[in-house]
Amino acid sequence: MNSQPSPRTQVRRLPDRGRYDEETIHGILDAAFLCHVSFVVDGQPFTIPTLFGRKRNCLYLHGSSASRTMRELQKGIPACVVVTLVDGLVLARSAFHHSINYRSVVAFGTARLVEDPEAKMAALETVSENVIPGRWAEVRAPAPVELKATAVIEFTIEEASAKVRNGPPKDDEEDYALPVWAGVLPLRTVTGEPRDDGRVVDGVAMPASVERYQKR
Amino acid sequence: MNSQPSPRTQVRRLPDRGRYDEETIHGILDAAFLCHVSFVVDGQPFTIPTLFGRKRNCLYLHGSSASRTMRELQKGIPACVVVTLVDGLVLARSAFHHSINYRSVVAFGTARLVEDPEAKMAALETVSENVIPGRWAEVRAPAPVELKATAVIEFTIEEASAKVRNGPPKDDEEDYALPVWAGVLPLRTVTGEPRDDGRVVDGVAMPASVERYQKR
Repeated sequence: MNSQPSPRTQVRRLPDRGRYDEETIHGILDAAFLCHVSFVVDGQPFTIPTLFGRKRNCLYLHGSSASRTMRELQKGIPACVVVTLVDGLVLARSAFHHSINYRSVVAFGTARLVEDPEAKMAALETVSENVIPGRWAEVRAPAPVELKATAVIEFTIEEASAKVRNGPPKDDEEDYALPVWAGVLPLRTVTGEPRDDGRVVDGVAMPASVERYQKR
Repeated sequence: MNSQPSPRTQVRRLPDRGRYDEETIHGILDAAFLCHVSFVVDGQPFTIPTLFGRKRNCLYLHGSSASRTMRELQKGIPACVVVTLVDGLVLARSAFHHSINYRSVVAFGTARLVEDPEAKMAALETVSENVIPGRWAEVRAPAPVELKATAVIEFTIEEASAKVRNGPPKDDEEDYALPVWAGVLPLRTVTGEPRDDGRVVDGVAMPASVERYQKR
């Protein structure tokens, strides 16, 4: 992965928010489990939200073997994967300086189909472990017929840029005299109470994966 | 907006999750303030996270007049806007039946630049009110020079589909005998404690917009 911006990845607006180093980019990717993947068919952009997991410089996505997204991506056409985490509302004294605190990554690359069953299984574990660590080992592994019905895509990041905004609003100097409250309203994702599906076998307790997830 | 699916919008995988009625689509859009907008330049898809607001069948986006996204979108090229809300992790007894509960909208259309200053101002208010209702009236309105530096895009939804998954996991019948906990781990976004920026004029209290936001 190139750590210098290209014309495709350079953050042009507010360039001080742009980051191109692998540590920042991987850190943002690893803090998320949902991405938006985009591809083009006949000049029309299609964007689909989907789960993912990262290993080294590759993102793994999965879906039904019959899905349009999976069938298009595996052609190796140019794709774009975006991950966005919202950290808060930035409330300034002027409408103009309102913003949000966020961390985002825009990654460009091409995808290929993972066909080897062992590699597919490993990639699915990578996705699962990224969504809820420890769950993979608790559940029934994919059967051969399930593996066949699942398409796994390996998206290699050729170029990426991160954008990060944090901290308080920045107002115009003369606006600080205005009698307007300004600051940040933090936003974060939390878990609610786990709800079993009413058919859990007697004596089976809530698993470690769920307990750990709640505590993080 | 057409309420029948087209080849472009039809939900093909798990078609029972697809919805095409305006009430569902607008409901999901109105529950979010962040979207991902995609466009194509020279065959390469670009996807950018951005704030938005809805009025009737139009989505309003804004950005710097100099931004590539704003400059490309105003050409009226095909665009795709996606909104995704994650409601929980769906934890099944088999890896295969794991999923997430979510609400998403994929909308197709074209964008145009809003140029009339009054219409621009109204569109910016629509975005602001969608992010944090009531804030617009509390702050200094955009000055002419700020309005000029801001590009406002009106994206008319030509076609859209919603996808919704909720409820417990659905396992294969024989898997219900497995000693594996299964259910849903709800996820939701909450506010943290508002932090003023340390320069609020003495005697200015936390505004109604922030207090209301925290309570919702």
